[in-house]
Amino acid sequence: MQKMKIAGVASLLGAVLLSPVGLAQDHTAVSDSALVRDLFSEVLAHGEAHDNLRTLCKDIGHRLSGSPSADRAILWGQSVMDAYGADTTYIMPVEVPAWTRGDVAEATASFSDGTTLPLHVTALGGSVPTPQQEWIEGPLLVVRHLDALDTLDATGHIVLFNRPMDPLLINTGAAYGGAFDQRGGGASAAAKAGAIGVLVRSLTHALDTLPHTGSLRYKDDVERIPAAAISTVDASSLAQAHASGSHPEGIRVRLRMNCQDLGTVEQGNVVGEWTGSQYPEEIITLGGHLDSWDIGEGAHDDGSGVVHTLEALRALKAVGFEPQRTLRFVLFINEENGNRGGKMYAKIAAEEHEQGLRHVAAMESDAGGFVPRGVRMDALDAGVDLVRSWAGTLEPYNLHYFGRGGAGVDIGPLKALTPRPLLVGLVPDGQRYFDLHHSSQDVWENVHKRELELGAATCASIVALLDRHLPTP
Amino acid sequence: MQKMKIAGVASLLGAVLLSPVGLAQDHTAVSDSALVRDLFSEVLAHGEAHDNLRTLCKDIGHRLSGSPSADRAILWGQSVMDAYGADTTYIMPVEVPAWTRGDVAEATASFSDGTTLPLHVTALGGSVPTPQQEWIEGPLLVVRHLDALDTLDATGHIVLFNRPMDPLLINTGAAYGGAFDQRGGGASAAAKAGAIGVLVRSLTHALDTLPHTGSLRYKDDVERIPAAAISTVDASSLAQAHASGSHPEGIRVRLRMNCQDLGTVEQGNVVGEWTGSQYPEEIITLGGHLDSWDIGEGAHDDGSGVVHTLEALRALKAVGFEPQRTLRFVLFINEENGNRGGKMYAKIAAEEHEQGLRHVAAMESDAGGFVPRGVRMDALDAGVDLVRSWAGTLEPYNLHYFGRGGAGVDIGPLKALTPRPLLVGLVPDGQRYFDLHHSSQDVWENVHKRELELGAATCASIVALLDRHLPTP
Repeated sequence: MQKMKIAGVASLLGAVLLSPVGLAQDHTAVSDSALVRDLFSEVLAHGEAHDNLRTLCKDIGHRLSGSPSADRAILWGQSVMDAYGADTTYIMPVEVPAWTRGDVAEATASFSDGTTLPLHVTALGGSVPTPQQEWIEGPLLVVRHLDALDTLDATGHIVLFNRPMDPLLINTGAAYGGAFDQRGGGASAAAKAGAIGVLVRSLTHALDTLPHTGSLRYKDDVERIPAAAISTVDASSLAQAHASGSHPEGIRVRLRMNCQDLGTVEQGNVVGEWTGSQYPEEIITLGGHLDSWDIGEGAHDDGSGVVHTLEALRALKAVGFEPQRTLRFVLFINEENGNRGGKMYAKIAAEEHEQGLRHVAAMESDAGGFVPRGVRMDALDAGVDLVRSWAGTLEPYNLHYFGRGGAGVDIGPLKALTPRPLLVGLVPDGQRYFDLHHSSQDVWENVHKRELELGAATCASIVALLDRHLPTP
Repeated sequence: MQKMKIAGVASLLGAVLLSPVGLAQDHTAVSDSALVRDLFSEVLAHGEAHDNLRTLCKDIGHRLSGSPSADRAILWGQSVMDAYGADTTYIMPVEVPAWTRGDVAEATASFSDGTTLPLHVTALGGSVPTPQQEWIEGPLLVVRHLDALDTLDATGHIVLFNRPMDPLLINTGAAYGGAFDQRGGGASAAAKAGAIGVLVRSLTHALDTLPHTGSLRYKDDVERIPAAAISTVDASSLAQAHASGSHPEGIRVRLRMNCQDLGTVEQGNVVGEWTGSQYPEEIITLGGHLDSWDIGEGAHDDGSGVVHTLEALRALKAVGFEPQRTLRFVLFINEENGNRGGKMYAKIAAEEHEQGLRHVAAMESDAGGFVPRGVRMDALDAGVDLVRSWAGTLEPYNLHYFGRGGAGVDIGPLKALTPRPLLVGLVPDGQRYFDLHHSSQDVWENVHKRELELGAATCASIVALLDRHLPTP
């Protein structure tokens, strides 16, 4: 019945869609543009990043350092690297903190008219519990800046830090950085002024009822008081009520949390190595962090970086790439609350340098699974210029951004090496990132398949270009 | 995600957040960079685009040309332009088609083992109903290309066009364009081969159960047969079953639709004018299209372009901009199924040229409310070079793309004018657009506030830069 005739271009398209892309090609001969084209096509046609992310998010779930699920994630990550053909895989031991959120984080505000408002809160990571895990209560004090407390007596108060992320900054990461001090240092600043507890406005542009957690850092010489993230809607309500003057006797806040510090346990960075054919002693690292916060699923932060890393290994193998240098694929532990994985990796890298190995470059994906915009570089001028020289090769993939900046928390400690490695960070679009970041909504369903894949292909391409074009030893 | 340290900026930010942005400044004196900065800040701090889009999507809803809701949208659009301070507003009459979807669009497939599969379908815009609005039934024929039908006898068959959008193309618009012929011309190609009806695989990368509608065009000399969009999941299932050989007696499809052609009615383009201070006879147009498909809410397509246009007017006024040329803000009618609004606008523009007015430039936003990437230009070299000369001014807003291409369907007919106006199209990121496009999911909830605002600010900025830098008459 059917006698099909297929036009020229169509059969080409059909062939591309049906056949493995570039398999068994000799990639030493093809141009950079053809190599990058093959990597993107491989990932878009046969990508496993989205499925891997589902496994990580749904079968394993969130995976805070020190938790049993982080142990499971480590084993899973290593097994995928083995399946994808890494020459060797191993766990690099890292001692990590084992803090737990517990199952109670409650807060309410009481107003002078007798009404109360339940507040959406969750413990900041590393917070102490309320004493005896019972209620604390005190009058509310609202400030926008830590240094406002230098001249205030907050004795017995619960302090709300309520400075929003600046909506006028185009770069949401910069807006996050500009509000971060409240979460990182608010508890100690408030304790110094006599406060008994702290609420921190969630670090997000979204006006919603989700508390967004994240780490705090207590100062050594100040009492440790409990600290919770509060949703932006609740923070705004409290601050408005506080400023309105309609509660002359003040607003009182109660807070109860049973989070707990369980000391430290041994976990580790997952490392997969692919030995270089020409310069095996030179190492290029690509990684993301395997740990996540313990609400949501850590899908964007940093499940995306994890599956970008795994997919880059898979795709480079699939297109027949043969690295000159040794490629190391690393799933770091403990980025969220200590960065002990990144620090240990750099410590061992320094020892490896003594033994004649050289970490020449590292790339990290830890800014989400959104559509990639380009990369940022933390490098000497020559390194920055090298990466910028690929702009024409990368432009067809809408990769236009080649700025300077922090390339990533996990690879950051490698900066201390001499000579300094070229550090590169993936830059996905950031407009939606903080809507989800560190909240219950950072789940697999909120990661877009194609956008995730484009990020993975970008990581694979940058690693391949680094391997091809770094100065020969 | 790492934090960025911004020392000392925090107190400045506080001040910026509390004060109205740029209000009542004299903008003839400020640099391009300061002007663009003020426009983005105004939109991000005080933007009304997201609220306007909610009104358009929720209070008015979808608004196919010829429908009563399109009438309501026209009145609303004009009222917003009046409120935002346009010097004059008016409706430019346009005769538009009045096709209705009806309330029945059903299809099922029956297999030789006696099982049946209900199919998710909806009429393609402009389709005839099934005869007497009753069931048609015939054996399934699956093809990937229109010209496959040149050598096939499809007599009595229902043809499924099942060529997916090419996932390997980075530009999803190009992938859409590459599959579009099936929807636009499939019905006539199938009718010529004897078919009684057509199903067209929805034009989306998403594998889901949503039919995505859109217009078809019947050839004059071929019988008009009913045509429906079918979800990608169903199209894939049918094609697999068809190719499997496990149904030797074939697969039969039934289809029933009661869509209807109601002739034409008069509606119109909404026009708001802001008279130029120096060259009032030179016109710069900014627009989107007010009509939408009649499923979903037309939120991205093209509610976003509508509110981008309105917000540009509001923001330019708010920052104290004084145009040298006359700015025309236009909400076009009938982009989706005829482009009669755009054609009428160009016809009147040609008459205006005779009267001494000159359309020197036009910009359109009709590619969604996603984060902007830049603009594409349909212009002579000098115009393209002019816009590219602003790259440094626009780079801080992550606007990097300055390619050539179709600037927009509505403004496209202006190309026929002599001298040819500079046409510019907003380019938002396109990775998610076709997931929602022409489907029930193109709703307000799926438009991101900041991303929408960044698009509006981009439109306002480009219009302001055009006004400042187009060659003087």
